[in-house]
Amino acid sequence: MNPPDQFEGTFNVTFRHRVLFERDAFGTGTALANVLSSANEAPVTTLAVVDDGLVQAAPDVPRRIEDWFGRHTTIATLATEPIVLPGSERAKQGMRPVVDPVIEAIRQAGLCRHSCVLGIGGGALLDAVGLAASLAHRGVGLIRIPTTTLAQGDAGIGVKNGVNIPNVTGGKNLMGTFAVPSGVINDPTLLTTLDDTHWRGGLAEAIKVALVKDHVLLDTIEASADALVRRDLDSMEHVLKTCAHLHLRHITDGGDPFESKLARPLDFGHWVAHELEARSDWTVPHGEAVAMGMSVDLQVGKAMGLTDADTADRVDSLLRQLGFLRTPCGSVTTSELLEGLEHFRQHLGGRLTICMIQSPGSPIDVHAVDMDITASALDAVLAGR
Amino acid sequence: MNPPDQFEGTFNVTFRHRVLFERDAFGTGTALANVLSSANEAPVTTLAVVDDGLVQAAPDVPRRIEDWFGRHTTIATLATEPIVLPGSERAKQGMRPVVDPVIEAIRQAGLCRHSCVLGIGGGALLDAVGLAASLAHRGVGLIRIPTTTLAQGDAGIGVKNGVNIPNVTGGKNLMGTFAVPSGVINDPTLLTTLDDTHWRGGLAEAIKVALVKDHVLLDTIEASADALVRRDLDSMEHVLKTCAHLHLRHITDGGDPFESKLARPLDFGHWVAHELEARSDWTVPHGEAVAMGMSVDLQVGKAMGLTDADTADRVDSLLRQLGFLRTPCGSVTTSELLEGLEHFRQHLGGRLTICMIQSPGSPIDVHAVDMDITASALDAVLAGR
Repeated sequence: MNPPDQFEGTFNVTFRHRVLFERDAFGTGTALANVLSSANEAPVTTLAVVDDGLVQAAPDVPRRIEDWFGRHTTIATLATEPIVLPGSERAKQGMRPVVDPVIEAIRQAGLCRHSCVLGIGGGALLDAVGLAASLAHRGVGLIRIPTTTLAQGDAGIGVKNGVNIPNVTGGKNLMGTFAVPSGVINDPTLLTTLDDTHWRGGLAEAIKVALVKDHVLLDTIEASADALVRRDLDSMEHVLKTCAHLHLRHITDGGDPFESKLARPLDFGHWVAHELEARSDWTVPHGEAVAMGMSVDLQVGKAMGLTDADTADRVDSLLRQLGFLRTPCGSVTTSELLEGLEHFRQHLGGRLTICMIQSPGSPIDVHAVDMDITASALDAVLAGR
Repeated sequence: MNPPDQFEGTFNVTFRHRVLFERDAFGTGTALANVLSSANEAPVTTLAVVDDGLVQAAPDVPRRIEDWFGRHTTIATLATEPIVLPGSERAKQGMRPVVDPVIEAIRQAGLCRHSCVLGIGGGALLDAVGLAASLAHRGVGLIRIPTTTLAQGDAGIGVKNGVNIPNVTGGKNLMGTFAVPSGVINDPTLLTTLDDTHWRGGLAEAIKVALVKDHVLLDTIEASADALVRRDLDSMEHVLKTCAHLHLRHITDGGDPFESKLARPLDFGHWVAHELEARSDWTVPHGEAVAMGMSVDLQVGKAMGLTDADTADRVDSLLRQLGFLRTPCGSVTTSELLEGLEHFRQHLGGRLTICMIQSPGSPIDVHAVDMDITASALDAVLAGR
């Protein structure tokens, strides 16, 4: 039989994505045991990677992890004592800070595709650990334990990872993959050690999710703004849980989990944010940058007649009440930030597609923005007006 | 409404995989235009990466590629002149030889997720280019144009990529991803410039596929052995087409396209091969190493009573007739190669699972091998007996 000159086939792959909120995950909690038990080997060989920022704020975390594994020997085995690696944007400056050492630890400890990497830290560390786990042996299991509000509500919920190419424009998240973790475990008690900037960081993304998907969440954040400012954990947990839930549904039910289409509503405000972070040499934290990016796009939308004026002003007030829009941006200029439009287009691919907000819960895609209006809005936010 | 403490969802992703055999793909062919036309942007910004081994053997290839794009400006645009990078196992020694420069070229040329990287070369170059394309922007389109028999029948057909961690044991393919190319275009006329070692290389993998999946293919290779040795292109094309077709069907219809299960029949003979390549510092070519690996596992299977004696002896004769089993392996020792069993287990994950052959087309998974018998078989193949 002669084989044909051309042949093709299709195949489907099913992915499962889950998020578990649980207080005291390394103590009385059961979530970690549940997720580890669903792996393909027992006991699961596990490598724990901990954010150095977390260890600085909560020095007992590595010991608590070791104790947990000491109490669950039939479920999992710690391959080596928890390794502590740089968190924050330092984690993402190329492969060296986190990706290379995690892959080397995976090799040395003899982890296989049915083993598990446990990433414990902020969104940047989780992004880098996730890339390492997805590359090693073409994919070792990954459990994320996000420890910041940003990561519990947003970054840790996504199914992507990535690191930057350092010291080049357009290098943000230039190397990464889509990879679905075995589970995400959000322990709100880990948030109590955060400084105020990191405490409020996730609220910027929560407001973003509210603007794109759920006007009720915006009401909730407004109603609990005072409690959030005075660091009420129940209020924060409620906001993050709602935000994470909406984010997960967007991935599983939104029809484009691996972002092959042009529209990416959850990137509202992010074209400015990504450029601002890179241009400020990562001194502007992600939450602050997203708040500024949303402020810019809401003002642009308002001036272009796309965004209702009430929504733009209301969100501006809420952001200020929560402590955003007060961060200096160093020497970053408006003309530098305008280049972010092209970098954003390149990263998403194809035609420029920017999400704008008409009113809370009503996003709209636009393919061009008025450059004069955008420049004015950038001027204002850079000047802290 | 209070969101739940735990939530999850599943989603499906459909992948399309296609292989097109066509002579003179950069001349009169239509395959490249067909595959590029299915991309999300027109004209598709394309980066061409060419194996330096191919350029050495066929110096006009970069110019022919440029001419092709010059004739198809409505379909695609070449982002820059074709870049020539190291082929053979040099391509896979970490990220530096190929992955880093390809990602940097993608950045500099402003490619996006709807652009395309065209990899033209042997399996090693394609593995490294594929990894670069799958990482950049979390996945730029990839078209593979394999130029060796190994790559056209086997390596180029897979949906995976990878590079090694250099200078460590167990470092083979330690960093990689699963990523389905937009298309694979096999131009048999590119095979005429290969030296004899690379000409026969793909036949080792073809015999492997025959042993695992199709006894008729083994008959075909035997019947055309003389023609294959005297480099008859029609015979080679027929074997490679059959092999590639069986390989694609294994991926699309085999139920485990991204290899999350333990059994991996297409890795028959590869536990020895991978270790031998690494231990010989990549001086033993992949095809030769696979031939030796199959010879070892057939002799082990025969001595353990798993493989019928006739099959083992028949394949041994065929391999020798085609020119295999004559390559010196330097100072590699049997005890070094035995470590390959554990490295193979780690790379696949979980319990050791080795594919053995009962008779052509009848594979069987085993979870243990007799170490004395295996050591003897390794001794014999290393001694060239």
